[in-house]
Amino acid sequence: MTEPVLRLIPLGGLGEIGRNMMVLEYGNDMIVIDCGLMFPENEMLGIDIVIPNMEYVLERQNKLRGVVITHGHEDHIGGLPYLLDQISAPVYATALTRGLIEVKLQEYHPHSKANLHTIEAGDSLRLGCFGLEFFHVCHSIPDGVGIAVDTPVGLVVHSGDFKFDHTPVDGRITDFAKLAELGQRGVHLLLSDSTNAESPGYTPSEMMVGRMFDRVFAEAPGRVLVATFASNISRIQQVIDTALSYDRKVGVVGRSMVNNVRMALELGYLDAPDDVLLPIERLRQLPEDQVAIVTTGSQGEPMSALTRMAAGEFRQLQIVPGDTVVISATPIPGNEESINNNINNLFRLGANVIYDQLMDVHVSGHGAQEEEKLMLNLVQPRHFVPIHGEYRHLALHAKLAEEVGVDLDNIFLMMSGDVLELTPEGGRVAGQVSAGYVFVDGLSVGNVGHVVLRDRKTLARDGFLIAVVGVDSQTGRVVSGPDIVSRGFVYMAESEDLIEEAKGAVVRALEETMGHRAEWSLLNAKVKETLSELLYNRTKRRPMILPVVMEV
Amino acid sequence: MTEPVLRLIPLGGLGEIGRNMMVLEYGNDMIVIDCGLMFPENEMLGIDIVIPNMEYVLERQNKLRGVVITHGHEDHIGGLPYLLDQISAPVYATALTRGLIEVKLQEYHPHSKANLHTIEAGDSLRLGCFGLEFFHVCHSIPDGVGIAVDTPVGLVVHSGDFKFDHTPVDGRITDFAKLAELGQRGVHLLLSDSTNAESPGYTPSEMMVGRMFDRVFAEAPGRVLVATFASNISRIQQVIDTALSYDRKVGVVGRSMVNNVRMALELGYLDAPDDVLLPIERLRQLPEDQVAIVTTGSQGEPMSALTRMAAGEFRQLQIVPGDTVVISATPIPGNEESINNNINNLFRLGANVIYDQLMDVHVSGHGAQEEEKLMLNLVQPRHFVPIHGEYRHLALHAKLAEEVGVDLDNIFLMMSGDVLELTPEGGRVAGQVSAGYVFVDGLSVGNVGHVVLRDRKTLARDGFLIAVVGVDSQTGRVVSGPDIVSRGFVYMAESEDLIEEAKGAVVRALEETMGHRAEWSLLNAKVKETLSELLYNRTKRRPMILPVVMEV
Repeated sequence: MTEPVLRLIPLGGLGEIGRNMMVLEYGNDMIVIDCGLMFPENEMLGIDIVIPNMEYVLERQNKLRGVVITHGHEDHIGGLPYLLDQISAPVYATALTRGLIEVKLQEYHPHSKANLHTIEAGDSLRLGCFGLEFFHVCHSIPDGVGIAVDTPVGLVVHSGDFKFDHTPVDGRITDFAKLAELGQRGVHLLLSDSTNAESPGYTPSEMMVGRMFDRVFAEAPGRVLVATFASNISRIQQVIDTALSYDRKVGVVGRSMVNNVRMALELGYLDAPDDVLLPIERLRQLPEDQVAIVTTGSQGEPMSALTRMAAGEFRQLQIVPGDTVVISATPIPGNEESINNNINNLFRLGANVIYDQLMDVHVSGHGAQEEEKLMLNLVQPRHFVPIHGEYRHLALHAKLAEEVGVDLDNIFLMMSGDVLELTPEGGRVAGQVSAGYVFVDGLSVGNVGHVVLRDRKTLARDGFLIAVVGVDSQTGRVVSGPDIVSRGFVYMAESEDLIEEAKGAVVRALEETMGHRAEWSLLNAKVKETLSELLYNRTKRRPMILPVVMEV
Repeated sequence: MTEPVLRLIPLGGLGEIGRNMMVLEYGNDMIVIDCGLMFPENEMLGIDIVIPNMEYVLERQNKLRGVVITHGHEDHIGGLPYLLDQISAPVYATALTRGLIEVKLQEYHPHSKANLHTIEAGDSLRLGCFGLEFFHVCHSIPDGVGIAVDTPVGLVVHSGDFKFDHTPVDGRITDFAKLAELGQRGVHLLLSDSTNAESPGYTPSEMMVGRMFDRVFAEAPGRVLVATFASNISRIQQVIDTALSYDRKVGVVGRSMVNNVRMALELGYLDAPDDVLLPIERLRQLPEDQVAIVTTGSQGEPMSALTRMAAGEFRQLQIVPGDTVVISATPIPGNEESINNNINNLFRLGANVIYDQLMDVHVSGHGAQEEEKLMLNLVQPRHFVPIHGEYRHLALHAKLAEEVGVDLDNIFLMMSGDVLELTPEGGRVAGQVSAGYVFVDGLSVGNVGHVVLRDRKTLARDGFLIAVVGVDSQTGRVVSGPDIVSRGFVYMAESEDLIEEAKGAVVRALEETMGHRAEWSLLNAKVKETLSELLYNRTKRRPMILPVVMEV
């Protein structure tokens, strides 16, 4: 008889591991934890979103007993429409998370029927050989859970995205008791959130943001606008609470913000007296110091409400001197330029703008180093895999684990697609499965790959130049052209000389080649080489060059 | 007689003002302060560098009495080659700044002869009606100056880039006495650095970085590599000093670092005993705990030494476990992804990486809010123009000025190209001159503009598709094609069906149009429209579409 082996495989991630998708497999049973999307890096030109390569799961779908979701952020649920397009596994999520999944599935496929199940912290669930228990964790979205998975090789604990907030806005603290109990039972493997492994100390409580809002509202002479993530229900709650205590009414602006607020109110995750939330039209009739607004656009997204307000292009609401705008978020790397543009524009319109560099109007949803150590010491795992981070975060988290006493040999720094094989005795990283990611561009999932991206990079840098020439298929004589078509290279209207020179070069290259009765491919290569050299000498640029020879 | 008017005009800047170029003009005399370049924003695809639109200066070159440079950073000197290409004005700079300008001019035009003059802090200089006095300011490069300009309307003080460092590495503090004296004489207008107007308190002293280096060197088991800006001579000095005290030899890696170190040693701005600096080959023979390296690449520049080391592609030097790598810089916005990639790769190679999020191994070269207020209170200007910042920095700096007592009506928030007219009585922003910026792409200065960039954006997002068709010029009949050429749109090898469909659409469009004896332009439009609709329906993408009809 072979030894029982649990296989753990993180999928997806752009340099990160485990945030988007995690596979647990034992014998004939498999579960998937989270199924999220990634946002494209700057280099990934034209790509809309990136999803995990799910091949491994699809090929073993007969084993898949369920998909469990820790919380409702895009990087944990955004891949679901693509997975459920291909298989019909049951999905388990808490009520708010389920609500967000339903909105997402509706947008993707209005008539799809997914097999969704609501669970809540404290519930148990059996999926094949796996016994799951869900426990509450605090994060920047309510209703997050961590998961304890009882497996044939031992207990595995997945932290979800967590922080230890002692004064969360919804009053529900991370379940210390459960974590301690799991620790007492004996945890074979802990998978824990590494996002803030670079930050010493503790992440401040969400409550602190409320205190800052209080200061801002107390001093604001006119309207107060707060931009934050549409999913940050607790932050929205704090705007409502602060507005209430300063006798202000609250307007909600931005499509996703409006949708989420409606859903959170219905499900009871947001608490607002009847007459506090008002439509923008009604707010316009109130004195400005009785108005507060929550809005999308904290990341400078081009079409978002705040970006349009900052540009003076949002019809429902104009920024005026006396307005106070609070950007209650920190920039996701890559968004700095857009956010700064918004701030500059808002200042220009006369608003007083308050953002993270000026005041602590945002806190992270992830625990810092002391919280990561607390998680480790509560759970006391025998083996440890840092997840939810780039390599540097994992490496730093691994150091923390070693400091609190986890055996260095039992800490695994994994990459996407790595397979951790865990037995009751120990673990080792054994091999790699096909993993990585898939580009979604328009309707295409996967068609745009490295060849297309490489071409886009060349085009983005220096444009293209195409030489079209008609050649008599019998004689090989040039009967038409060469015509030059070029975009993104030089300003054509002012580059007649260069274009004429290029035409001349093509003609000469053709003449030289004709003598040798060359194949078309040789002829193409010759034209390309000649043009490439000429254009580089003249401009020190390397546009994409394509000769098109038409036989007529 | 008309009243005497001083005109002050900031030029250049991508959203910033005054950092790259500042014009002072009175009657028949004009001087320019600084002549720098800008680094392109992410949106400016393929652009190498951006320089100020210098039209205003070029058109009035007969009035130009001189160009004075405050310090040797790219954003203050990098535009000089382009200006001096067109006019031969005298340039005034301190010795180190002049050294850096000479290197730059050599690279650009090996045989050009510029009219350079060395000045030093404490010097006076008359340029037309302007009397200039230079005073020392601390910054992240040695030998920086601020400038007091005695003009017919009153005294104008330009702070340069400054901080009030009480313990600078070269021992030369910002000249408090001079600033106070100017304040006593009566300053009509202060132009002051706004870079850190978002930061409360004081910027820490450069000395603090030395203390951190000391901790790092004390604990490092193997080699210590420090990455920083090649121009940060004081930082390099601190690496040398710390290495000395731990009996380590120092290697210098990276072309610009090697050049600057050589120049700074020659000019006496860098102090190193004879046997401390060694070539890499010699360092290889030493035990690892006797080795330190200073290197370029702190911003993750693709071809830099550190980036190549992190990728394992730097032949002279391989990163090994036990190495400590210090990234002694903060990311310039837009560089975060590249820097993080380097850090991840270095951790993967087993190095211990220390960077700003983990330890204070970098300080800014610009003063924070308390220093900006100190400058204002020393100089006590009647009028104030915040410079060197985006609008948000200027707005925040203006608030500080108001707090320390500058009359709100005398504070001017300017934009690039704005003209401030200053008389002995007061000032006002009166009109705009052509300003903005010019793209440098390869050899071209200005040829690449908004049309080319707009095309590059389209190409970067969705690529292009060109339909080529040969048409009999007599009959209008299609005699060849349609051929489809496409790049950056779909993966062609897997898109045969779509390409065939596109060809069919072109044929149909041509047939429909032929019946109407259409002009070529109509025919082009019809083909484009048909293709555009088809491709969008099939892919939800909008590649650039170009029909090419060849008459044969």
